[in-house]
Amino acid sequence: MKSPRRRLVPLPLRDVEIDGPFWSPRVQTNREVTIPAVYEEYKRTGRIGAFRLRWKPGRPRQPHVFWDSDVAKWLEGLCSTLVTHPDAARRRLADRTARLIASAQQPDGYLNTHYTVVEPDARWGNLRDRHELYCAGHLMEAAVAHRQATGSMVLLDALCRYADLIDRAFGRGRGKQRGYPGHEEIELALVRLWRATGQRRYLNLAKYFIDERGREPHYFRLEAERRGEPSGPFMPGHFINRQAHRPVREQTEAVGHAVRAMYLYSGMADVAAETGDAALCAACRRLWRSATERKMYVTGGVGARHQGEAFGDDWELPNAGAYAETCAAIGLVFFAHRMLQADGDGRYADVMERALYNGALSGVSLDGRRFFYVNPLASDGSHHRREAFACSCCPPNVVRLLASLGAYVYSRDDRALWVHLYLGGTATATLAGQPVTLTVATRYPWDGDVRATVATEKPVTFSLMLRVPGWCRRHTLRVNGRPVAARVSKGYARIRRRWSDGDRVDLSLAMPVERVAAHPLVEADAGKVALQRGPVVYCLEGCDHPVDVRRIALADRSRLTARFDPRLLGGTVVIEGTGLVRPEPGGREALYEQDRPAVGRRVRIRAIPYCLWDNRRAGTMAVWLPRA
Amino acid sequence: MKSPRRRLVPLPLRDVEIDGPFWSPRVQTNREVTIPAVYEEYKRTGRIGAFRLRWKPGRPRQPHVFWDSDVAKWLEGLCSTLVTHPDAARRRLADRTARLIASAQQPDGYLNTHYTVVEPDARWGNLRDRHELYCAGHLMEAAVAHRQATGSMVLLDALCRYADLIDRAFGRGRGKQRGYPGHEEIELALVRLWRATGQRRYLNLAKYFIDERGREPHYFRLEAERRGEPSGPFMPGHFINRQAHRPVREQTEAVGHAVRAMYLYSGMADVAAETGDAALCAACRRLWRSATERKMYVTGGVGARHQGEAFGDDWELPNAGAYAETCAAIGLVFFAHRMLQADGDGRYADVMERALYNGALSGVSLDGRRFFYVNPLASDGSHHRREAFACSCCPPNVVRLLASLGAYVYSRDDRALWVHLYLGGTATATLAGQPVTLTVATRYPWDGDVRATVATEKPVTFSLMLRVPGWCRRHTLRVNGRPVAARVSKGYARIRRRWSDGDRVDLSLAMPVERVAAHPLVEADAGKVALQRGPVVYCLEGCDHPVDVRRIALADRSRLTARFDPRLLGGTVVIEGTGLVRPEPGGREALYEQDRPAVGRRVRIRAIPYCLWDNRRAGTMAVWLPRA
Repeated sequence: MKSPRRRLVPLPLRDVEIDGPFWSPRVQTNREVTIPAVYEEYKRTGRIGAFRLRWKPGRPRQPHVFWDSDVAKWLEGLCSTLVTHPDAARRRLADRTARLIASAQQPDGYLNTHYTVVEPDARWGNLRDRHELYCAGHLMEAAVAHRQATGSMVLLDALCRYADLIDRAFGRGRGKQRGYPGHEEIELALVRLWRATGQRRYLNLAKYFIDERGREPHYFRLEAERRGEPSGPFMPGHFINRQAHRPVREQTEAVGHAVRAMYLYSGMADVAAETGDAALCAACRRLWRSATERKMYVTGGVGARHQGEAFGDDWELPNAGAYAETCAAIGLVFFAHRMLQADGDGRYADVMERALYNGALSGVSLDGRRFFYVNPLASDGSHHRREAFACSCCPPNVVRLLASLGAYVYSRDDRALWVHLYLGGTATATLAGQPVTLTVATRYPWDGDVRATVATEKPVTFSLMLRVPGWCRRHTLRVNGRPVAARVSKGYARIRRRWSDGDRVDLSLAMPVERVAAHPLVEADAGKVALQRGPVVYCLEGCDHPVDVRRIALADRSRLTARFDPRLLGGTVVIEGTGLVRPEPGGREALYEQDRPAVGRRVRIRAIPYCLWDNRRAGTMAVWLPRA
Repeated sequence: MKSPRRRLVPLPLRDVEIDGPFWSPRVQTNREVTIPAVYEEYKRTGRIGAFRLRWKPGRPRQPHVFWDSDVAKWLEGLCSTLVTHPDAARRRLADRTARLIASAQQPDGYLNTHYTVVEPDARWGNLRDRHELYCAGHLMEAAVAHRQATGSMVLLDALCRYADLIDRAFGRGRGKQRGYPGHEEIELALVRLWRATGQRRYLNLAKYFIDERGREPHYFRLEAERRGEPSGPFMPGHFINRQAHRPVREQTEAVGHAVRAMYLYSGMADVAAETGDAALCAACRRLWRSATERKMYVTGGVGARHQGEAFGDDWELPNAGAYAETCAAIGLVFFAHRMLQADGDGRYADVMERALYNGALSGVSLDGRRFFYVNPLASDGSHHRREAFACSCCPPNVVRLLASLGAYVYSRDDRALWVHLYLGGTATATLAGQPVTLTVATRYPWDGDVRATVATEKPVTFSLMLRVPGWCRRHTLRVNGRPVAARVSKGYARIRRRWSDGDRVDLSLAMPVERVAAHPLVEADAGKVALQRGPVVYCLEGCDHPVDVRRIALADRSRLTARFDPRLLGGTVVIEGTGLVRPEPGGREALYEQDRPAVGRRVRIRAIPYCLWDNRRAGTMAVWLPRA
């Protein structure tokens, strides 16, 4: 389905293969370890069995309001792996799960395990808090993924019937409720359903949910009154936390629960792309700037506050106290990817890459078995990944992100093939009526050399748009060995030519170790630097150092070198140099004392990628280092 | 009433006169401007009239649960001014208010405007949230102050009857409820009542409230069940916020609502002083260390978090986002003063002085008419003092602190006169049976020269204990012009001699401009310095600088000079030097970018005392400056 207002269309997962040293092993681990591990966890906890609808009051493992979404996200990921890596056993598991979910559908189309068995009379009674439409959205995404991976309509048909039921229940028409979800998700899912089915009513319903949000009389207030709840002092907080404090087109600041915000903004970008709604586009850009230019960690994490899992104020980005939920960084990838398709501007790809390589990937351990829910940028040694959470939104979100990673790498438009990320591997697209395969060979992000080779049966004219990342200050470009001076516009170098089979492009991105400074108003980072090389943000970890790494400062003139260590953490570039250990406060442990010259014991430092921390011995961690 | 376990006894307010350039005008403004202004505000809002008990349902100005405490704190302050500065009009106002309050007492002794007229059937029904015992405590403190200032028993008798009613209602005996306050205060008030009356049952009741706190079965849970409230997920947070999560002797960390914590710890210190309870003493010392060595601002502010007005984690001390309620800094003064009497250790006086000169005094404007509730250490220019608050706890707390300031300055023990603070003025005490007057002349804190002159009819032998502040790294001491080498122990120089009339001690405290660094784990201050001179913490204020002061960095080698400016802010020492304006991020406003050399435009800086900020044009403010 062509979207009228998207400049770019992503190359679909089935046309992309990933083959590179950084991502290939992570994607493989996701497929072979994480997906089965999450499934076992979901069986063990009753999430899978819940769809049998056998729970009775008083029994254990009562279906929770968000369980359906957990299974749906996992299934979506499983289906994506079938697109890239077909496998009979995984296919059987996907089909079995799809049938099981569909079997839980009620005669009228309703499909929610919690409400069906636990609160059958409370259906649609508390959209504000109870995740009913959120679960529906995730089931729709899973259904589309299952259809695309297997061709089976069993789950998609069920979810279309459910979407039709929702469409009859909510909206502006007579007899409908003017509700919308307390946890956004269904908006982007309905656009996905519209793209998969061509049924415009799903797009219209998505648009309705977005348009209705935050209007007066406020649905969440009316709904609370119907429940007999006092609509007292907590209401404004509820509204802001759910981005429902005013109509979305009037919102200017990224606020409230960060995952909710990212899903809403992604859905807004989707609807804007499909409808060409300029006011909605403008709101998306404003909210993008608020979220990424004033409220984002250097890791791409968003949602600084534990309280409400929410965005803080501008520049409020505490490091040890960061929340930065894994799901929020993943949601930022979603939002960035959509803005990138709409505007074709590399600044969205820069943020997408930042989140992918850092604050989203940190959500899962190298062995694929443990997860961070919270992603702080400094630790006293007490923060560790865990195998399972009662609130299990992050593990299956990691699963579906890694399983569908190929869909984020390339786009096409009428005249060009766009390369957003340098993951290595191949992409196939039809350009000027001609099938073209681009093979990308690179060790990125460990170095900045990228070779792209064109394979085509006949010569074909198109533009190759190669992203020059925002972090890169110097690059060279050669075609078949000869330097070319391609203009870089909005972060992409355009090479327009008649391409022949075997044509070769060499992009070389200078990738020195960089000290990064934060905006002066970011209090937690003032007077500090972070280390970054290419898109990878580094940290110091306790097990590499003889002291609490939060005491290590870095002199401006201290030389830093990068070196690939094949034996460390599956093979990684480390940054090495010399730091200064801030002296221990004298005598008794003073909170404040006269400043002493910034000398201290010298110590060898070794920084590792932030996404790889907490994969060895437990200990302290720091991303931002005070300047010595 | 001698307390068996206090090493020191404070010289009472009536024996101390303050005469110095820093405090005298502030104390005078408090007496002549703030006290009448708060009274007018309390009349206007109905707080005074509430004691007439004429409110009826549906009428405006319904007495709030904490109104009684507001009036009580104000009256306590008014009475303290009568001790130091007798005045017929103020005396009449005090007596009239005391009679008005006493007139609201019910036949059984109960005395609370809100419960008497608004919820007569709900008495003692929600100790957790409703401030009933807290108000009682403040009324007791006011009653003691009124008696001490005027000799009148009208209010003290009423409050003794009320205390007796409370004593019959709460405790371990048959028919009593095992409750305790949700907002602590009555504990320290009952000790004050015991000291004023000699009635041991008030001390026992204070001890009971402290001992019962946090025990199982948990009173707040039982009480909530009686109200028919679900004792659900919010309970643990309630308990911690009120320091009722475990018995106080087992508490090791300063947690929860900071004002509640400070009042509780002060009450614990009082009970420990009167009973010699070693476990309670040890708990006080542990909680002191937690509060002041890991959770206190350089200004002496405590309670970093807005959420719950509460202590944060160790080292969690955001500057712009600080809560640091004025009342909490005042509560820290109370706690410090009690610990100082118990242990005679200057580190308590250091903290008391830090809070007094900075985070407590900042609570009131120079003109005495406006107040801070929240005291951040950095501002974007939007934070200002206001004339009134609906929750008006801070203004009368400032009133009573400044009105009773003399009581914090000196102590005595069997053989010594202790000088804790150098405020200037006189103190009279009987030492070795002989009345002695000490006259202190000083411009402290503007310089560190202090001259103390002894007046006595007959020569008398005692030790003069002169505090050498923790901030001071070099001092000299002369007696009658001749250097003496007095040993400094626990922060006090002891001069033991036979003193004759006119003997003169000159203490000179070196008071250079100091750069102060925070413990390396305080994230918000890492890589930054604060300016301090003597006990005074400085800040940069927008109206003295051409840029947002939060962008100004300070080079380690930049020279800083102190100068007294008699025309500025009533006369103050300013610190001057050269700072560097951090360059604006280039191009679009980048949140993160490659670090550039720490150069920038040079700018003259002028730092003013933190306690004096926001007395001129509105603008930005910063205490901690990044090192350039």
